[in-house]
Amino acid sequence: MPTRIELYDTTLRDGAQFEGVSFSLNDKLSAIGRLDDFGIDYVEGGYPASNEKDRALFERVAQKPPKSALVCAFGMTRRKGAKPEDDSGLAQLVASEAPVVTIVGKSSLFQAKSALRVSPEENLAMIDDTIRFVVASGRRVFYDAEHFFDGWKDDSEYALETLRVAARAGAESATLCDTNGGSMPGEIAAGVSAALEAIERERSSREPRVGIHAHNDCGLAVANSLAAVASGATLVQGTINGIGERCGNADLLVVAANLALKFAGAYDVLRPGALERSTALSRFMSELTNLSPNPAQPFVGASAFAHKGGMHVSGINRDSRTYEHIPPEAVGNERRVLVSELSGKSNIVAFLKKYNLQDASLDSETIAKILDRVTKKESQGYQYEAADGSFKLLVSKVKGEFVPSFRRLNFQTSVVVNDVNETLTTKATVATVKLRVGRRGEVRHEVAEGDGPVDALNNALRKALEPIYPELRDMKLVDYKVRVINSDAGTAATTRVIIESKDGEERWSTVGVSENVVEASWIALCDSFEYKLAKTLGK
Amino acid sequence: MPTRIELYDTTLRDGAQFEGVSFSLNDKLSAIGRLDDFGIDYVEGGYPASNEKDRALFERVAQKPPKSALVCAFGMTRRKGAKPEDDSGLAQLVASEAPVVTIVGKSSLFQAKSALRVSPEENLAMIDDTIRFVVASGRRVFYDAEHFFDGWKDDSEYALETLRVAARAGAESATLCDTNGGSMPGEIAAGVSAALEAIERERSSREPRVGIHAHNDCGLAVANSLAAVASGATLVQGTINGIGERCGNADLLVVAANLALKFAGAYDVLRPGALERSTALSRFMSELTNLSPNPAQPFVGASAFAHKGGMHVSGINRDSRTYEHIPPEAVGNERRVLVSELSGKSNIVAFLKKYNLQDASLDSETIAKILDRVTKKESQGYQYEAADGSFKLLVSKVKGEFVPSFRRLNFQTSVVVNDVNETLTTKATVATVKLRVGRRGEVRHEVAEGDGPVDALNNALRKALEPIYPELRDMKLVDYKVRVINSDAGTAATTRVIIESKDGEERWSTVGVSENVVEASWIALCDSFEYKLAKTLGK
Repeated sequence: MPTRIELYDTTLRDGAQFEGVSFSLNDKLSAIGRLDDFGIDYVEGGYPASNEKDRALFERVAQKPPKSALVCAFGMTRRKGAKPEDDSGLAQLVASEAPVVTIVGKSSLFQAKSALRVSPEENLAMIDDTIRFVVASGRRVFYDAEHFFDGWKDDSEYALETLRVAARAGAESATLCDTNGGSMPGEIAAGVSAALEAIERERSSREPRVGIHAHNDCGLAVANSLAAVASGATLVQGTINGIGERCGNADLLVVAANLALKFAGAYDVLRPGALERSTALSRFMSELTNLSPNPAQPFVGASAFAHKGGMHVSGINRDSRTYEHIPPEAVGNERRVLVSELSGKSNIVAFLKKYNLQDASLDSETIAKILDRVTKKESQGYQYEAADGSFKLLVSKVKGEFVPSFRRLNFQTSVVVNDVNETLTTKATVATVKLRVGRRGEVRHEVAEGDGPVDALNNALRKALEPIYPELRDMKLVDYKVRVINSDAGTAATTRVIIESKDGEERWSTVGVSENVVEASWIALCDSFEYKLAKTLGK
Repeated sequence: MPTRIELYDTTLRDGAQFEGVSFSLNDKLSAIGRLDDFGIDYVEGGYPASNEKDRALFERVAQKPPKSALVCAFGMTRRKGAKPEDDSGLAQLVASEAPVVTIVGKSSLFQAKSALRVSPEENLAMIDDTIRFVVASGRRVFYDAEHFFDGWKDDSEYALETLRVAARAGAESATLCDTNGGSMPGEIAAGVSAALEAIERERSSREPRVGIHAHNDCGLAVANSLAAVASGATLVQGTINGIGERCGNADLLVVAANLALKFAGAYDVLRPGALERSTALSRFMSELTNLSPNPAQPFVGASAFAHKGGMHVSGINRDSRTYEHIPPEAVGNERRVLVSELSGKSNIVAFLKKYNLQDASLDSETIAKILDRVTKKESQGYQYEAADGSFKLLVSKVKGEFVPSFRRLNFQTSVVVNDVNETLTTKATVATVKLRVGRRGEVRHEVAEGDGPVDALNNALRKALEPIYPELRDMKLVDYKVRVINSDAGTAATTRVIIESKDGEERWSTVGVSENVVEASWIALCDSFEYKLAKTLGK
């Protein structure tokens, strides 16, 4: 029988401690819904004693709980020298009505003395009293054994005693934390075994149970989580995309994929089919946190199955197992073949195949021309890896098939800001575009306003083109990214703009490069409009 | 006696296979210099048979070799059915004059059959002939055992036989590659032990020696490298910052820091003092590759010692060991305290302390006001974590000490591009600024051109301010970053601009936010000028 491993997500609490991350109440509610759909067993919603937003969250969750995930409230042991019933933080934890309450306490003598400044006995009493108080209120309690591994290395007997106290007080599980992220996998394995043995000896009514909470300060959060599971931990705490204090927490998506795919039959984790939604969940969380996705993220990153070296591409063209450890579909990701100066022609061929651009007219000479054009543009700062729309236009230009829907004659943008005593009072952002449009070459000169120069250009382009090409109405720009390429050139740096657009059928991305951010945006915008028109006119 | 572990850097070869990375000849030369200074034992320069740039590189290196690092040339086994002396790739390897030649061959029966399409015997002959040919030319040879671990899992005898053949042919070391990155640490440990035993039985003249080349597809590249070393590998291959094909390679900086700091006395790695230059080397490589640094990178990332949670900050104020696994100085990094809505006042206090802003006037009421202002600005998209200059201005404004050096009345920017048949022919980018400057309130209205609207604004600001504040001449903008915050709003998205400036004494960063990229830049620019003037006028 495989061992059931439960997942405990702390993205909304420890993940929020990652630099640059902040969740609104609505963000938290939508994240809980997604984590529930994915099949996470426990979701730590927040810390109701610390702020109004988290108190409101638990009210909303109590009114409408998720389908299967249990939303846990996080809180600390009681204040020193006080009684649990007099502690307002604990009162709020109980008032949260969360079915599971996670109580963090110090499982290290050094931390009790240095950070809390309490005696060893008082620290144990704080753990004991607090857990008994919350259990008496009818809640399930998980004990978060903060600094367990460092504490165990310093004074193992004291660290283990905190676990025994928590178990006797009624905590059903102790999650062993490598809070500072400094432990090696061998230390984690030994610590987990010692913890299980210590609780086992207590012979409490329940099965002894421990979890793991690993941080990535040594680049080992995933390895440490797996080492803990191999030693008997049955609950893994972590975050989606591995965000968290300092270098982050164990990435739950990566831990789950390893447990499910690499130890087949040994562990039972998530529900069947969940893993295939990993990539979508990862991207959802990147959006929600406003963090750029890490392309190199294991399993779910955009580059995780991207092949660049010519030898690799020719290998996967023969058998994808030559350079892929799992099929990308297993985690909902996809294979990509990159086009760059390292490409052989096989990359271009694979790229063309992916976009259904392969046809008889693409002989070896044309492919060589495409490779040459790509190499030249990339040396100017262009990148086609994330700009399929611009790549397809490039191919049709090289093949001599491209018929422009409009010719650019002139554009102007102007931003005027009147500023009185640092209060921005009036602003005007205007763009004009002058185009020669359609087969009859009608000149259209239009002006529009916008939130910024690029928005104004977008509006003016639409004003000029929509009367002639009404199909543009169902096209929408959905993503706008700016990347400064040589940022050390200061304000004269080259910028690369990527614009993603969609219509009812598909999404496409286009790229523009210039030392002028407005011009780079203009190039990407025009490519996007040209792509849309080429595709509908070609029908 | 500690075991000597040598480091083999493949940033310039496998690292170049990372999505978006490309090195020029000069990039490679400057990287080799930095890696040599850092104390890397072997630097893989490139693949001379594949391109002209790499051939030129080895010519330059032969003329002026690094102080201590050996620059290795990478190449493949001979073509099937041919003789080594007729293989032009091998001729170029020998012609490179590299002191060490790394020959990659297939150590997996599946790969030999599927990717190379050769018989098992021919694959062994290719390894044997090629290594003998290069050894006969007087070079040291390392064998890169591609796909060793997968091959060993499929057909262990064949995989081990490739290593025996390489050892008999004269390769002094076999680097065992987890090419697809799919292996678990336990498999790596067992594979390394089996490899050492297989070569040991050969009783060749040399000590049996193996290395490890790990990929991060399961988030385990660092753990797998450490597992290999624990099983007897004495050479670790990897890249700076872990860049490489797909999810990247083992990050050499992280592996080295773990070996040196976490296994004290067991291993001898790098030279004394080298580790303290880790952070600087990491940032150098981020610049060179034009990749945004990963703030969560273990040891060397900007967030690696950044504390955000109030409990953490109050802990480190008492003893930094409460939330840091090593002192940041050990790897040349620094402690940071983040200011955000999660901050308690202790974060603000630590921030003020860091910037020497703590004085008697900062009573608890003022600190509460600063926290309030920070929280409000962050909700609009501002971030002070990376904008020390803007934060200091905010503090002096809250304290009522800020005396503006100029008042903004109006700015305008205009971009005009005349475009004929997709050939950009004429462009004009102009900005005007109108300011009230100095104590007498003189109005200055100036116009300037620039590469883009922001560059033009910078030039116009200087034109308006330098006659009155000549100290601005020694100030320079050195970095310009744009981040789209809610990129899904398309071209109407909010943008955050961070500008880094320097003068002879220090560097400072400022931030601006607006849905208009030009205005966001203007706000950050004005803050930068104000900061410079406040600091020199305050003297």
